[in-house]
Amino acid sequence: MNLTLEPLTPTAFAPFGEVVQSDGADPVAINQGFAERYNGLANIDVSQAGGHVNVSLFTARPRPEPIAIQLMERHPLGSQLFMPIQNLDWLVLVCGDPRDRASYRAFRATGIQGVNYSRNVWHHPLLVLGQTCRFLVVDRAGPGHNLEEFALNAEQQFALEP
Amino acid sequence: MNLTLEPLTPTAFAPFGEVVQSDGADPVAINQGFAERYNGLANIDVSQAGGHVNVSLFTARPRPEPIAIQLMERHPLGSQLFMPIQNLDWLVLVCGDPRDRASYRAFRATGIQGVNYSRNVWHHPLLVLGQTCRFLVVDRAGPGHNLEEFALNAEQQFALEP
Repeated sequence: MNLTLEPLTPTAFAPFGEVVQSDGADPVAINQGFAERYNGLANIDVSQAGGHVNVSLFTARPRPEPIAIQLMERHPLGSQLFMPIQNLDWLVLVCGDPRDRASYRAFRATGIQGVNYSRNVWHHPLLVLGQTCRFLVVDRAGPGHNLEEFALNAEQQFALEP
Repeated sequence: MNLTLEPLTPTAFAPFGEVVQSDGADPVAINQGFAERYNGLANIDVSQAGGHVNVSLFTARPRPEPIAIQLMERHPLGSQLFMPIQNLDWLVLVCGDPRDRASYRAFRATGIQGVNYSRNVWHHPLLVLGQTCRFLVVDRAGPGHNLEEFALNAEQQFALEP
């Protein structure tokens, strides 16, 4: 099966979380007219089991193409937000059930679009294109086990063509 | 008084909050070796008075130079994090007491440095240089009044030369 890359839009991504973008949001004028604020772009959900917000920076390198999809992951205790901090397209791969190929969706995000995966949403680790990319990440730290990985078997694995 | 711009370092900025940067932080290898994670870069403090995390995007325009410093602000109920999402230097102006000129500090941040102002820290609204700049902002939403502004009188006002 070839998975077709879709453009990343808030509506298409809604089952999985929020798209962090100013496009389509209503700005508020602030800072004596020298700035606009686009508010409330992500539902940060990190307080399960005594958790708190963890702000991190990620540096991610591109994988060989076509990209071998061998593992999906999810975080049962918290949401996870990725905001690119350079203007370069990147890929977002999610699914409803990693065993069900038909449930996979692949999105091409622009360099000014972030995503916030809702708690428990299956997603692939960062997929960047062409060069090393940096992201600001807002997720959860705290007690409990917040990483579930699913290793696809040989039959479940597939290749993603950017 | 001329305020000298200092380079932004975690030590120099410590009385006011955290510098959000990977430099000096210990990375953790993740994503099957294709990424590094720099963890715990900011103390997000937004739960006062029933608050919650608010993720926003800001678009800020440069002010005429030299920059007329006429107003400082602080947030009594929460921290406020600014991460530039383009690689352009920007300015950070803070003070211990807006009436006390000697308490002001001005920092030149690089385009890969963010800051997280601690709750109640006096700071100037965003100061960007040369062109319109965008920031991801992590602060607080919720009940209560979370903005205190101090308008400097004519004698207290000064000019900041980038």
